[in-house]
Amino acid sequence: MAVRVGIIGLGVMGADHARTLHRSVASAVVTRVTDIDTERSAQLSAEITSAAVSTDGIALINDDEVDAVLIASHDSTHAALTMACVKAGKPVLCEKPLAPTTKEAAAVVAAENGAGLISLGFNRRFDPAFAELRSTIRSGDLGNPLLVHFSHRNVASYPGADSAFSITGSAVHEFDTVPWLLGSPIVEVSWHAPKRSSRVSEKLQDPQIMLLRTADGVLTTAETFINAAYGYDVRCEVVCETGAVQVTKPDRTVIDAAGRRGTGYPADWRPRFADSYRRELQAWVGAIISGTATPLASARDGLAASAVADAVITSMNGGGKTVAVTVPEI
Amino acid sequence: MAVRVGIIGLGVMGADHARTLHRSVASAVVTRVTDIDTERSAQLSAEITSAAVSTDGIALINDDEVDAVLIASHDSTHAALTMACVKAGKPVLCEKPLAPTTKEAAAVVAAENGAGLISLGFNRRFDPAFAELRSTIRSGDLGNPLLVHFSHRNVASYPGADSAFSITGSAVHEFDTVPWLLGSPIVEVSWHAPKRSSRVSEKLQDPQIMLLRTADGVLTTAETFINAAYGYDVRCEVVCETGAVQVTKPDRTVIDAAGRRGTGYPADWRPRFADSYRRELQAWVGAIISGTATPLASARDGLAASAVADAVITSMNGGGKTVAVTVPEI
Amino acid sequence: MAVRVGIIGLGVMGADHARTLHRSVASAVVTRVTDIDTERSAQLSAEITSAAVSTDGIALINDDEVDAVLIASHDSTHAALTMACVKAGKPVLCEKPLAPTTKEAAAVVAAENGAGLISLGFNRRFDPAFAELRSTIRSGDLGNPLLVHFSHRNVASYPGADSAFSITGSAVHEFDTVPWLLGSPIVEVSWHAPKRSSRVSEKLQDPQIMLLRTADGVLTTAETFINAAYGYDVRCEVVCETGAVQVTKPDRTVIDAAGRRGTGYPADWRPRFADSYRRELQAWVGAIISGTATPLASARDGLAASAVADAVITSMNGGGKTVAVTVPEI
Amino acid sequence: MAVRVGIIGLGVMGADHARTLHRSVASAVVTRVTDIDTERSAQLSAEITSAAVSTDGIALINDDEVDAVLIASHDSTHAALTMACVKAGKPVLCEKPLAPTTKEAAAVVAAENGAGLISLGFNRRFDPAFAELRSTIRSGDLGNPLLVHFSHRNVASYPGADSAFSITGSAVHEFDTVPWLLGSPIVEVSWHAPKRSSRVSEKLQDPQIMLLRTADGVLTTAETFINAAYGYDVRCEVVCETGAVQVTKPDRTVIDAAGRRGTGYPADWRPRFADSYRRELQAWVGAIISGTATPLASARDGLAASAVADAVITSMNGGGKTVAVTVPEI
Repeated sequence: MAVRVGIIGLGVMGADHARTLHRSVASAVVTRVTDIDTERSAQLSAEITSAAVSTDGIALINDDEVDAVLIASHDSTHAALTMACVKAGKPVLCEKPLAPTTKEAAAVVAAENGAGLISLGFNRRFDPAFAELRSTIRSGDLGNPLLVHFSHRNVASYPGADSAFSITGSAVHEFDTVPWLLGSPIVEVSWHAPKRSSRVSEKLQDPQIMLLRTADGVLTTAETFINAAYGYDVRCEVVCETGAVQVTKPDRTVIDAAGRRGTGYPADWRPRFADSYRRELQAWVGAIISGTATPLASARDGLAASAVADAVITSMNGGGKTVAVTVPEI
Repeated sequence: MAVRVGIIGLGVMGADHARTLHRSVASAVVTRVTDIDTERSAQLSAEITSAAVSTDGIALINDDEVDAVLIASHDSTHAALTMACVKAGKPVLCEKPLAPTTKEAAAVVAAENGAGLISLGFNRRFDPAFAELRSTIRSGDLGNPLLVHFSHRNVASYPGADSAFSITGSAVHEFDTVPWLLGSPIVEVSWHAPKRSSRVSEKLQDPQIMLLRTADGVLTTAETFINAAYGYDVRCEVVCETGAVQVTKPDRTVIDAAGRRGTGYPADWRPRFADSYRRELQAWVGAIISGTATPLASARDGLAASAVADAVITSMNGGGKTVAVTVPEI
Repeated sequence: MAVRVGIIGLGVMGADHARTLHRSVASAVVTRVTDIDTERSAQLSAEITSAAVSTDGIALINDDEVDAVLIASHDSTHAALTMACVKAGKPVLCEKPLAPTTKEAAAVVAAENGAGLISLGFNRRFDPAFAELRSTIRSGDLGNPLLVHFSHRNVASYPGADSAFSITGSAVHEFDTVPWLLGSPIVEVSWHAPKRSSRVSEKLQDPQIMLLRTADGVLTTAETFINAAYGYDVRCEVVCETGAVQVTKPDRTVIDAAGRRGTGYPADWRPRFADSYRRELQAWVGAIISGTATPLASARDGLAASAVADAVITSMNGGGKTVAVTVPEI
Repeated sequence: MAVRVGIIGLGVMGADHARTLHRSVASAVVTRVTDIDTERSAQLSAEITSAAVSTDGIALINDDEVDAVLIASHDSTHAALTMACVKAGKPVLCEKPLAPTTKEAAAVVAAENGAGLISLGFNRRFDPAFAELRSTIRSGDLGNPLLVHFSHRNVASYPGADSAFSITGSAVHEFDTVPWLLGSPIVEVSWHAPKRSSRVSEKLQDPQIMLLRTADGVLTTAETFINAAYGYDVRCEVVCETGAVQVTKPDRTVIDAAGRRGTGYPADWRPRFADSYRRELQAWVGAIISGTATPLASARDGLAASAVADAVITSMNGGGKTVAVTVPEI
């Protein structure tokens, strides 16, 4: 028996998910696709012949040939479509963010009302390296975690990216990863500006440093640098009482040439995290088939990350002051 | 549409393949399983409910609910079962070796008669690191390959392993990998004995060094050490005219503790090559669905590896002399 | 011609310097030694037969057989002894700190009055890795430096170490290294507490995070963890506009054993920085012989580091507020 | 008290030694230098003012202002000059090789007659990484050594280098290092040709593989590649019964730039082995001062390395056959 998946939004992320489900995920079949660009829908349906084109997201959600929905459309549509899935009683995997604002995210959490239908695409939870990092910390072998160092570097930002985007679009991954790693929510943050790269526009502070404190006192230094130029590079080290553990740079080969020994960096996140997306989708499909709770991030996790982003932006606008994180009660 | 796979032999390798096909391979369904141990068959059928139990291999091969066959039974059964699949006109993935002797392997190649039904389980071809190594060499960026260094180390050999087993059961991977990497067959070999480990029985020379020369003159130093104790470790470096490339140790995290910085070794090949098996099975299934030629190793590749193993054993029995490889003409 | 060196203070550091000068530094001869523990002086004189014992530091400084003085006695004696050397017109290498307080350090700078006689033992400037890091940044190949990450970890602190000691005794190295690397003084700091290790006394916050801003806007995250348990480990990465550079863990061999691949950490700073001390002493002696300006840190560098330490302690006592660094004008 | 050193031969190696002795070696003073190029002698004497110019090697050896002699002149002169030092009763450090032929080397050993005056410049014995490799093996922690892998790669060979030169000029280092590491002499060798680099002249087989067996049965695979193009790179791994140990690539910094993470290779041996030369010279001078036996390679070590080179050349000329090493009895 296979889960029949409908996909809304066929941009880079949605098309990538469609192909992964079709080619590399067991027990899944893509039956419906839709995009506001009908050309895109037609092309993908031609490529994945099991997938017919739906007229729009709502039609897709309510189609009898769809057991579960994957939402990868524009961020502004996430909340409404996710709530439509909840209303239809169908499992939904919504790409991050759950909603552009904390208020809207809270509304989705309220609408879900504990039904457990919503999964959120914080894919790092399915990256084998981050999973191993977490299990090492959780084993207790190194004592209590005390301190986390994160660096999150992209080659170049999209035109128009400003300082807030670096927080909501990039650092938001850390806002989910840190509590997932440590088992404790982020409760206090501050934002700090290194020297600004002369290569970026004036409305963008890049790089940025954030300090994130979890409820149990662990402090994270989180660097985001979305115009780091040299490559897509994500690092994370957790320092514990008797040892430290970090994710490695995931290289397959090393080359000696032209006076140097070196390994490559990918130009973006896709090669680095391809396996995490496959494993995330497989876990989602598997849970649907077995009728067990989703092992993906939940709507509440998405709400928490939004609340942290709000607090960081407040600190940025307040000259780097320390700001408490407020998660709406629902 | 899914490929309906029947699996013959449910030992460590066969059961692993069954679970991978079931859990992690798109467009495949395991419909039949069989093993000489009926308890094993029953257990796997209970775990993978789509898989009914066949009475024996021949019945499975000829079952209408089976589109393609995976053979992971005892080495001595490979040739006959593979030929039965050819006779039934069904695609078959046979675990290495194709046959215990070169003569039997040649018979299988003759029986297949160019039909392209047979795939062989030389999984390294689907390891992402080895694939990247190969594409780097093939790009020509480093000039012609001149020299290859291989080390193949296991923690401990099975009881009863002798010097010939180290060649036919372990080094045979190199006998396939080297020509696959270089695009040239192995034509000449010699065998050399380092100091013997005092931890192994006297009938086993361990470690061993083999020199393998391909038709285009590239020389490979291949070390096998099947009681290396410290971990499962496979290394390969190709030295070219203007640079060198090697596969990395595939680590996900690195730990600082107790006066050392370190990464782990797996106890056997499974964690190291799990992804290669998944990708191999997916590639096999995908080719069957699309009706394209198998991208896996062929029966002729299996025959060539057997012929190299024969030559290495001849060198070992002849005091390390240089021996030409003879592949039967078919 | 050799420089005749007198050494005041023969504890771990002073005795180490004496042996290095005697065994491994060209054109130097140790002619006088002294320590408040006369037994120590006698033993070292017996080991290094060229070195006679002086009755005390002042006698040593004024001895005609002494061309230059190395001070490694208790921190509280540094300022007075250094000023005595200045008065005697003799070059002096004073171990860090120049003085326990910024006020005393300022007095020494005033007494020196630009004579250039004082060198300070900030040995990292002579570590080959830090020197290479600096020359890479200075080359401009990676664009402007924007951000620095430091981690400074010791195995265990001395009994009685408190939170201020972690700043004045350990982080003080970073307070000198950062401006030396970047060519810009530290002007603003803040101090932050991660979760406290349960393995240390309550009067010690360990680890600590400091943010250090230089005059040109570069921000440094400096971690000190003086009870990191696993090993002596100093890391430094400088993130620039188009690339990043970091010092490596300086390993000579790597061992595969017992399921792990690993390299060792030293238990303290001596193996890690032995070569930097030799090179520092050689540079000091060489400059004296050639009559050129000292390439070591100056008295003013020592004063600047003291002023940064004061500001960090002020931040710590003020709940982590941002504090400007005030260097006394002289 | 300082050892007064005279240096014969002021080419790259000799001038480098002169500067190292002058600048970085304790208790040594260069008092005499000579070269067949009188311009060179004059320049070095001007640079190192303690060093007067001698008319020739014999005059230098017999000069009263010379306590010990360093020979770095043309290989063809080594044997005669070394014997002159022995006759004069003065300690001598002769650069490798002791003599161009085994016969001449044997004559020097005979002339020395056990006096212990001769040291040989096999500098790897003083490289900290090789020393650590050796002490790890000798500790017994990894069980008996069984197998050694060497790679010795240069950027480019001198014009005119032929296949024999690669053995006598480059691999000769391995011929000394292997027995020094293992504590057992090389007794049997064979030589093997990989594909020849198309970038080198036809009279040079490059790269080369040699198999070297020590008396206790350990087998070494030794690769030399003197036109490896990408950098100067020396690797060595020793595989033991329960683990393996290898020297690391000695990097000080690592750079992320332009899509790659990388470290540099030096263009030749000097940066890689600079520290080994300093330590070798310091050890030589220290032993002379203390009147203890030289810790450097001896004349007999040089003779043994020559005998291995002879055997390897015999194998090369004999189509790769296995050849026993014959060291002349003296």
